[in-house]
Amino acid sequence: MEPRHPFDAATALDRVAEGEFRGHTAPEYSNMVGPFGGITAATLVRAVLDDPRRLGEPVAITVNFAGPIADGPFTVRADPARTNRSTQHWTLELVQDGAVTTTATAVTAVRRPTWTDSEIAPPRVPPFAEAAPFVPPEFPVWMSNYEQHFVEGAGPLAAEAGPRPDSVTTVWVRDTPPRPLDRAALTALCDVFIPRAMVRTGRLVPAGTVSLTVYFHADAELLAAVADRPVLGTARAQHFGAGFFDQTATVWSPDGVVLATSHQLVYFKD
Amino acid sequence: MEPRHPFDAATALDRVAEGEFRGHTAPEYSNMVGPFGGITAATLVRAVLDDPRRLGEPVAITVNFAGPIADGPFTVRADPARTNRSTQHWTLELVQDGAVTTTATAVTAVRRPTWTDSEIAPPRVPPFAEAAPFVPPEFPVWMSNYEQHFVEGAGPLAAEAGPRPDSVTTVWVRDTPPRPLDRAALTALCDVFIPRAMVRTGRLVPAGTVSLTVYFHADAELLAAVADRPVLGTARAQHFGAGFFDQTATVWSPDGVVLATSHQLVYFKD
Repeated sequence: MEPRHPFDAATALDRVAEGEFRGHTAPEYSNMVGPFGGITAATLVRAVLDDPRRLGEPVAITVNFAGPIADGPFTVRADPARTNRSTQHWTLELVQDGAVTTTATAVTAVRRPTWTDSEIAPPRVPPFAEAAPFVPPEFPVWMSNYEQHFVEGAGPLAAEAGPRPDSVTTVWVRDTPPRPLDRAALTALCDVFIPRAMVRTGRLVPAGTVSLTVYFHADAELLAAVADRPVLGTARAQHFGAGFFDQTATVWSPDGVVLATSHQLVYFKD
Repeated sequence: MEPRHPFDAATALDRVAEGEFRGHTAPEYSNMVGPFGGITAATLVRAVLDDPRRLGEPVAITVNFAGPIADGPFTVRADPARTNRSTQHWTLELVQDGAVTTTATAVTAVRRPTWTDSEIAPPRVPPFAEAAPFVPPEFPVWMSNYEQHFVEGAGPLAAEAGPRPDSVTTVWVRDTPPRPLDRAALTALCDVFIPRAMVRTGRLVPAGTVSLTVYFHADAELLAAVADRPVLGTARAQHFGAGFFDQTATVWSPDGVVLATSHQLVYFKD
């Protein structure tokens, strides 16, 4: 039997009762404090995917990082608060030692074909092989799970440190070792961008996501077509002020198709 | 005593127990089916604002429209799932006759001064008085509560019907009668834009928001400075496909300062 991919091990859940799952933090995905937010968000998507009551596929999820998650076991509670004919609304929480560390809501849906169009286009970029490979730092540890080739905005963890006129990051990215893309992995990729305040200032500043939203646009066929190829991620802040900034991000297939759009609100200090 | 503004009447809640509020739908804010989503979202913000356990001010809210709300009374449940030193995480739901119609999460925070900057700029537009006033249709009824002067993208409810190359809407908007802006009203304004699929196709098509997120950037001082002047709203879709599209929106002060950024995922049919 082939060993599990570290991503699958980190997001694995045991269903112990209806709507109750047990998981365990993975040292490979640890951040400065607790796990990488993207792996927590992916774990919550996994809970919905693993729940036999699920109708359709995830179309939207919002994850709120309420408190730190300690190394060790945790419980995920998933409640399908409302099931309609073609949509279902989930309320989720991650609990550890009786304390809520993470709240979330998700929407799943049976999707049907309609006309398709994007009003946004991917930036013109050099191909993955021609963009500069990023050597991940030792800390935070989770970054070693991603192979990143930056086009711009690598931030202070890269050699290019220094303030920038904007917070834009454009990066080719995939799991390492490579792993076929699915909705859980796509969720984590939406949070792969380091805090925009760091990219903008060129300095490591205290920052942490408080709320992350992912809208899934890719269907199963498109995800299968991407397979384990690198995807293109773009992220930028819209507004910084009074201790918070927002980030808007898009993950594009290597062929320039929108896979997911994502937004987050991030706490930061000067 | 002056009569209450219709917005305040529509979002009024009676606190009947800790974390439990009673409200009532307002016919003035009815949509095609049930109330205007913006008034529902504003009512949930109101619940957080009215809860004596609240820490700080709303910085983010996500509202999921799970099922139709019938005309009549409803209950809002608000649970501060986690309270930290300077942030608090809320889980909310709106319940009617034992069924969950709406799920939500919110984050409140004690905000502190930091550097401030926007990486987005408002479009160059004619002033409110020079943009064409929109005569609201009889249905949906809620539109009569907003005074809208469209710069572009009024959609099929205006005279300009017909397909457009993009789904961009730019509009000066305020409550009518005018009402000083606050976070509840700002929340509703983030949902004032008609579905992008209609603006794009120029046709009335079945569509409904499934998930709405608002990030609040304005502080109390800025809101007070806006007072009851019109604000500028901009909205566009990023991607349409397989029955859903996303919308990203910004509400700007009349002086061009970001008040809120907002995102939603919307169900639509051809």
